[in-house]
Amino acid sequence: MTQNTAPASTKQKYLKAPVMLSKSEAEVVRALRGNGQTSRVDIAHMTGWSRAKTSQVVNALIEKGYLVQVGEGISKGGRKPRLLSFNKQLGYIIGIDIGATSLEIALADINGSILRRVSEPADVRLPPEELLGRCSMLILELTVAHGIRPEQILGIGVGVPGPVDFTRGVLVAPPLMPDWENYPIRNFFKETFLSAFVVVDNDVNIMALGEQRSGFAANLDHFLVIKIGTGIGCGIMAGRKIHRGSDGCAGDIGHICVDKQGPICRCGNQGCLEAMAAGPAIAEKAMQAASDGKSEFLLKLMESNGGVLTPENVNTACREGDEAALEIIRASGQMIGDVLAGLVNFFNPSHIFIGGGIANFGNHLLIAIKRAVLRRSLPLATTNLTISFSRTGSNAGVIGAIMLALEYLFVVKDDPYYLV
Amino acid sequence: MTQNTAPASTKQKYLKAPVMLSKSEAEVVRALRGNGQTSRVDIAHMTGWSRAKTSQVVNALIEKGYLVQVGEGISKGGRKPRLLSFNKQLGYIIGIDIGATSLEIALADINGSILRRVSEPADVRLPPEELLGRCSMLILELTVAHGIRPEQILGIGVGVPGPVDFTRGVLVAPPLMPDWENYPIRNFFKETFLSAFVVVDNDVNIMALGEQRSGFAANLDHFLVIKIGTGIGCGIMAGRKIHRGSDGCAGDIGHICVDKQGPICRCGNQGCLEAMAAGPAIAEKAMQAASDGKSEFLLKLMESNGGVLTPENVNTACREGDEAALEIIRASGQMIGDVLAGLVNFFNPSHIFIGGGIANFGNHLLIAIKRAVLRRSLPLATTNLTISFSRTGSNAGVIGAIMLALEYLFVVKDDPYYLV
Repeated sequence: MTQNTAPASTKQKYLKAPVMLSKSEAEVVRALRGNGQTSRVDIAHMTGWSRAKTSQVVNALIEKGYLVQVGEGISKGGRKPRLLSFNKQLGYIIGIDIGATSLEIALADINGSILRRVSEPADVRLPPEELLGRCSMLILELTVAHGIRPEQILGIGVGVPGPVDFTRGVLVAPPLMPDWENYPIRNFFKETFLSAFVVVDNDVNIMALGEQRSGFAANLDHFLVIKIGTGIGCGIMAGRKIHRGSDGCAGDIGHICVDKQGPICRCGNQGCLEAMAAGPAIAEKAMQAASDGKSEFLLKLMESNGGVLTPENVNTACREGDEAALEIIRASGQMIGDVLAGLVNFFNPSHIFIGGGIANFGNHLLIAIKRAVLRRSLPLATTNLTISFSRTGSNAGVIGAIMLALEYLFVVKDDPYYLV
Repeated sequence: MTQNTAPASTKQKYLKAPVMLSKSEAEVVRALRGNGQTSRVDIAHMTGWSRAKTSQVVNALIEKGYLVQVGEGISKGGRKPRLLSFNKQLGYIIGIDIGATSLEIALADINGSILRRVSEPADVRLPPEELLGRCSMLILELTVAHGIRPEQILGIGVGVPGPVDFTRGVLVAPPLMPDWENYPIRNFFKETFLSAFVVVDNDVNIMALGEQRSGFAANLDHFLVIKIGTGIGCGIMAGRKIHRGSDGCAGDIGHICVDKQGPICRCGNQGCLEAMAAGPAIAEKAMQAASDGKSEFLLKLMESNGGVLTPENVNTACREGDEAALEIIRASGQMIGDVLAGLVNFFNPSHIFIGGGIANFGNHLLIAIKRAVLRRSLPLATTNLTISFSRTGSNAGVIGAIMLALEYLFVVKDDPYYLV
């Protein structure tokens, strides 16, 4: 038996990711990916192969334990076609979504369906060993609960809230988590999960992957996902693929200049979108409004909070109809919309999905964003443009992390960049 | 003989584009495209096919007259491999680059090599029938000079200086050329060139294709081409493909807001980049500087010009070291750089190529652009970023138009969107 064989039931020898395929095998796997359960006839149609060649490649994949037959499809005349599917015994996938203040982990099968999940508060300012150690603990708990071994984890997708050098899988100058700079996240997990291939990406890219998986966005060619929270980031789907850019840091829109005379941002520049419109700026402005006597409601909240306000307090005030709070949210929405207007002219997406903690503040923000985009973008670029809240909401991150890991599960022999 | 056969020498029956291929044939054509002359062994290696299948597909393409054998390659032991190439007798390609004030047309062979070219001044404000009629005349002159028939033109690529709805091949709300709105450019040429498939795109997209073809940018995944002239536009290469966006109007960066209190743009908004930094704004500011007594040189030029200044006059003044003119160009460069800084954060390209009439004004503009980008973009996005003048210069447009036409020369049967 070679290494790339499914585990036998007696003497355990585990499959190791990434799984190497021939180019023909990759075409079959790709056909299955797009269609779930598929018949040989459909595969022959999609690949343009003869029946004989299709059967040969499919049979090889079944023999290796990668595919299984799963019942029968609908006959179009003649024998009912037998359907093929990935062999769920092959292994499992882990998705990790590390947020600034929370941690979400899911165990999924080889088709990306979530089997178990767990989430808890977390502080990303902790040293990486500590937070990642907690992740490993939680993954192990999930495997135990599901009755599987750590060696059966074939892929781990990790989303982190900071700029990632995607090729190396490390954070680069992450403002929220300086201790994580260049920390080898992949190696950390590989020490415990020996069979797994680990992929690290930033939180908005995995949100975009999750959005694509959610069904609604599956057929969209070009869309953006905007995450508004402690920072502001953007996931870019271009031609149905995540656009990461030349250094893997595309989508870092939080540091686009909104006002050259604006406040100093933590990046060192003046008037960045993030410094003016994200969570901390919203809280700051609310405290200013409270101190200036512009809102009794905010002032009371601040007093009962020990002299500070959080973005969530501003949200509460908005829900109560507090005009000062609403004005702050509208101003944030307008600034975000002004930046998006430029990106709409440049990128011409069909959809923009707004997500992240601040997005939960509701319609006032969304309306302000929409208004600014429509006012400043060119008509041709906005005629068919839809701006809405993220469909998958808080699930997008962990779903996207699973999708990311699945993208790197199979690779083509002699061509490590040919993802299946 | 079927329609898709190369012209026989006696009774002429011409091939018509797009040429339909089977999926296997398309793979061979694609392999040839990427490598120029290629042997059967190389094709077998690239496609992963057996020798028998490779020979079968290649022979079918030779029989149809699409490919020919062209001498021998270098032996790696054994018989020297015979090389394959496109059959140049198959037909010809026309590239048309319509600028605001000029017209450039080239006749190329099936490999995209230019055989003959012609250029002349033109006024894009003319009615489309008139300007396109002139194009047809010039193409016919090129065919006559080369001793070929109009029916041998298989593809015509057209670049126009305005927003194009790429799917329909028409201009939408073009500010420079209002008469062209929705004008059926494709049909116009099809009436004269019966075998040709006509593709229309905006001037910056064809520049980006030309830049990619120029050699230097051939291996770049993500780059931008900025055209600064009467307007300001951007061609986007994402994953080695032109990114046109959902409505085909991506890259329209001339209308990104630079100053909310700025002058009214022809698009109706205030303070667009184009209204503040492109050719007409440069001329306007120079006239203001002359009137305000800030530059004797500009004032003299204006007086000798009948009271007006052109962007070219400002260029002349810059070359003479006129400080007022230099300041105007630096200010334009800074505004363009500020917008590009945001796009660098968003898109993370490895290269930005600056072209167009104003780009010829030289280093002062480029330095100001670079300075603004470096100051406002995030370090990770600029570490490996190169900003330079376009390598292909004024050739990029017409070369790109040829490339565009070639992209649509072959399509796969049953899948009109599968470009070879």
